[in-house]
Amino acid sequence: MRPLPPRDSFGGIGRPRRCEGCVIIDVHDWLRAVAGLTSMRVTRVPLEELAGWRADPATGDLRHASGGFFAVEGLDVRRPGWAVPGWSQPIINQPEAGILGILLRRVDGVPHLLMQAKNEPGNPEGAQLSPTVQATRSNYTRLHRGRAVPYLELFRRPRGRVLADVRQSEQGAWFYRKRNRNMVVEVREDVEAAEGFRWLPLGRVRELLSVPDLVNMDARTVLACLPDLDGGEPGPRWDDEPGPRWDDGGFGAAVARSRDPRAGARHGLPELLSWLSGMRSTVDVHARPVPLNQVRRWRRADGRIAHESGRFFEVIGVRVEAGGREVTSWSQPMIAPVGTGVVAFLVRRIDGVVHALAHARVEPGYTDVVELAPTVQCTPGNYDHLPPAARPPLLAEVLAAPPGRVRFDTVLSEEGGRFYHARNRYQVIEVDDDPLPGHPAFRWIALHQLDELLRHSYYLNVQARTLNACLHALAQPVREPVIAGVR
Amino acid sequence: MRPLPPRDSFGGIGRPRRCEGCVIIDVHDWLRAVAGLTSMRVTRVPLEELAGWRADPATGDLRHASGGFFAVEGLDVRRPGWAVPGWSQPIINQPEAGILGILLRRVDGVPHLLMQAKNEPGNPEGAQLSPTVQATRSNYTRLHRGRAVPYLELFRRPRGRVLADVRQSEQGAWFYRKRNRNMVVEVREDVEAAEGFRWLPLGRVRELLSVPDLVNMDARTVLACLPDLDGGEPGPRWDDEPGPRWDDGGFGAAVARSRDPRAGARHGLPELLSWLSGMRSTVDVHARPVPLNQVRRWRRADGRIAHESGRFFEVIGVRVEAGGREVTSWSQPMIAPVGTGVVAFLVRRIDGVVHALAHARVEPGYTDVVELAPTVQCTPGNYDHLPPAARPPLLAEVLAAPPGRVRFDTVLSEEGGRFYHARNRYQVIEVDDDPLPGHPAFRWIALHQLDELLRHSYYLNVQARTLNACLHALAQPVREPVIAGVR
Repeated sequence: MRPLPPRDSFGGIGRPRRCEGCVIIDVHDWLRAVAGLTSMRVTRVPLEELAGWRADPATGDLRHASGGFFAVEGLDVRRPGWAVPGWSQPIINQPEAGILGILLRRVDGVPHLLMQAKNEPGNPEGAQLSPTVQATRSNYTRLHRGRAVPYLELFRRPRGRVLADVRQSEQGAWFYRKRNRNMVVEVREDVEAAEGFRWLPLGRVRELLSVPDLVNMDARTVLACLPDLDGGEPGPRWDDEPGPRWDDGGFGAAVARSRDPRAGARHGLPELLSWLSGMRSTVDVHARPVPLNQVRRWRRADGRIAHESGRFFEVIGVRVEAGGREVTSWSQPMIAPVGTGVVAFLVRRIDGVVHALAHARVEPGYTDVVELAPTVQCTPGNYDHLPPAARPPLLAEVLAAPPGRVRFDTVLSEEGGRFYHARNRYQVIEVDDDPLPGHPAFRWIALHQLDELLRHSYYLNVQARTLNACLHALAQPVREPVIAGVR
Repeated sequence: MRPLPPRDSFGGIGRPRRCEGCVIIDVHDWLRAVAGLTSMRVTRVPLEELAGWRADPATGDLRHASGGFFAVEGLDVRRPGWAVPGWSQPIINQPEAGILGILLRRVDGVPHLLMQAKNEPGNPEGAQLSPTVQATRSNYTRLHRGRAVPYLELFRRPRGRVLADVRQSEQGAWFYRKRNRNMVVEVREDVEAAEGFRWLPLGRVRELLSVPDLVNMDARTVLACLPDLDGGEPGPRWDDEPGPRWDDGGFGAAVARSRDPRAGARHGLPELLSWLSGMRSTVDVHARPVPLNQVRRWRRADGRIAHESGRFFEVIGVRVEAGGREVTSWSQPMIAPVGTGVVAFLVRRIDGVVHALAHARVEPGYTDVVELAPTVQCTPGNYDHLPPAARPPLLAEVLAAPPGRVRFDTVLSEEGGRFYHARNRYQVIEVDDDPLPGHPAFRWIALHQLDELLRHSYYLNVQARTLNACLHALAQPVREPVIAGVR
């Protein structure tokens, strides 16, 4: 059950307000109510005792008896010439692409999203705000004999306007070539919110990104792919609200302007694409699936698989008993990371246009070697035994950023269906100067260029997509402090 | 040695002419001269006797002793619900991305390309017109201890303007996830043509696409990615030439207009991308590497690997002795297809804008399940034992196309470094009506949209890229018939 903070700590965000065309309920009360209805009990169990799962006798790979869902296998990675020139690790292989979809509907011109309160076994604090549809292929082919996925047909055979529809990767450190279809479909007709679903104004959902562990990863990646809507995005208008204002030194207004494709950019898009093509073609990295029982320096003991150093992550088993989910109970392996990650974009205004410093990052599970990642993305504890040269560039600068330049700072959690209590501290930090001029693996990319790249697959990684969604949220006029001390 | 056809059959294409800024030599005489200098003797040898290659004792996979170059492995393919629901096959695994690059230089405003006369063991008729650089990573890390690759540094660290730079797939039926970097770099300074290289006007190279087996696959895929150049592409101007003219019922002029991004289109790009995203997400196909000795219905006998039906292709061995190549002799396995393929775009003017009918095609080796392919792409003999439902749509229409509607028709060969005498008959056929209205796997795409898609990876497959290069060639005013009877 989500231990909700007292109402005051949200600066009144939960107060019911009247919006033209719909009544905003208190999102926290609602999540709490849904959590009560859909109680989920998660118990850790040894991998050997996971019902329905078995270790392949020859390879040790963990598979479901149905052959579906996903498997935990091994991956051997070589990258000659790097500080860490190779390793092997367990990895999740889930070859099926699912659908992550959000329905959008304009009410009196204000875009609203149909959001779901969804609990997942790996969520740190119960139900989170999730997309309308979050379905693996196993879900919708009914492999686990559960109920039909509500609203799925509106994405499989869209009747409205498709605003976004693009396949994107997920964590390349934990997934081998995972991809999901990210969709936003605008409907014109009235679509009723079923139990566990609510129509919320887009602006409200974006505000909620500032609340820890509230908007789930799947919702964030879909929001990131939503293009700038026609005629701007005024967000919801309240009867008692004054006109737009920003209280962040003009940063939000600059972000809003920087999403306009007519705004300038430090590098042209062809130049950026050429840079990425070069990185993808010259990085010498080889990832090869291997049997799980052949990963080096990982030990299976006490019902789990852990690295002998205690770092990185563990593969654990859980048994789940759920009230209102598709099926009432199941068991599954999960990846449980060690430590909270740091994920930060350094951003900078160049000729008034906000640019983010993107890192061409190698992760072994990517479909095409390299994707554009945040400036810093790491779990600091994984590097504390390594020489300084092996530490991520700019990590120290991010950890020591002056509070006055931090534009966004919230701990958010990753996909709770596969990852157990996986949390990252997401930050947007404004800087005045280029801290890494001429570094071959970093480029300043204008915000409207990030939007353009998100029309296509496998350019921005899932962490960069979360930060892109957070940047879109910063472009909204602030109505009231979302959390005291953050903005 | 290339048995060149008599000069007359090329309609005088080889006549030396004076072009502003350069002297056009006779391309055929030149290829013949280079072929004489770089004689290549190719002898078929049993796979068991390939020097430097061995079959892995456990898997049967064919690998080079160095671990480099490429390997021949097995692939198991499942696609439930299709007329052919599964098969297994040998496939080439070449995980390294190489560079295919062409240098471009404007002489008095006329774009010229630095082309190479290059022989490859699989070429049906000797040397072909090839890109400036055609280098695997093994080439440029000097794995086979040969000479340095000329001009390579101009692509690895370009000093000029990068006009195209994009990773693209190659044959997904024969390669497992192969990709090459396709580059065009414009240089401003004088770059001297080394022995075996020539600066040729872009318009001339495009004309030569109509000559059978002359412009190689690597050159074609790079040409396809070259965007419409600033201020149009007038092609070379000759002193004695009248103004532009087309003799094809206005088709060439319509193609030229249809490359303008401001021209209209049947479907908007977001709609096309959504369609492709849907195809990639819903096609149920699973390709899994397996040991070569476990492919079903393929037999290793007589020093080669062949399908028991005699269809599809064979894996053969060759020994090569070359005069002017990087190294003087080597041995290697190759894929030798059975029969000549048919590769055709049906094209249609919609509101005056030329559209091509693209097929969302599944090939097991693609990086992302489906790529956009020509309307028809097959080797007819591979289907003659199957029920009509399993035959490719529109094949009969292409085979029976009225000669007056055939805008391009030339047999071209595929990459001669891996494929032995692999030839396809490439055709562009104009139609007035939609022969497959509403078919879920086909869409009409405007030519300027093909150009836009080619800025990004893995949208157009290698056969569609060849046809795109041929379409660009048709946009040029015709100066004289290239081959009697074709145009």
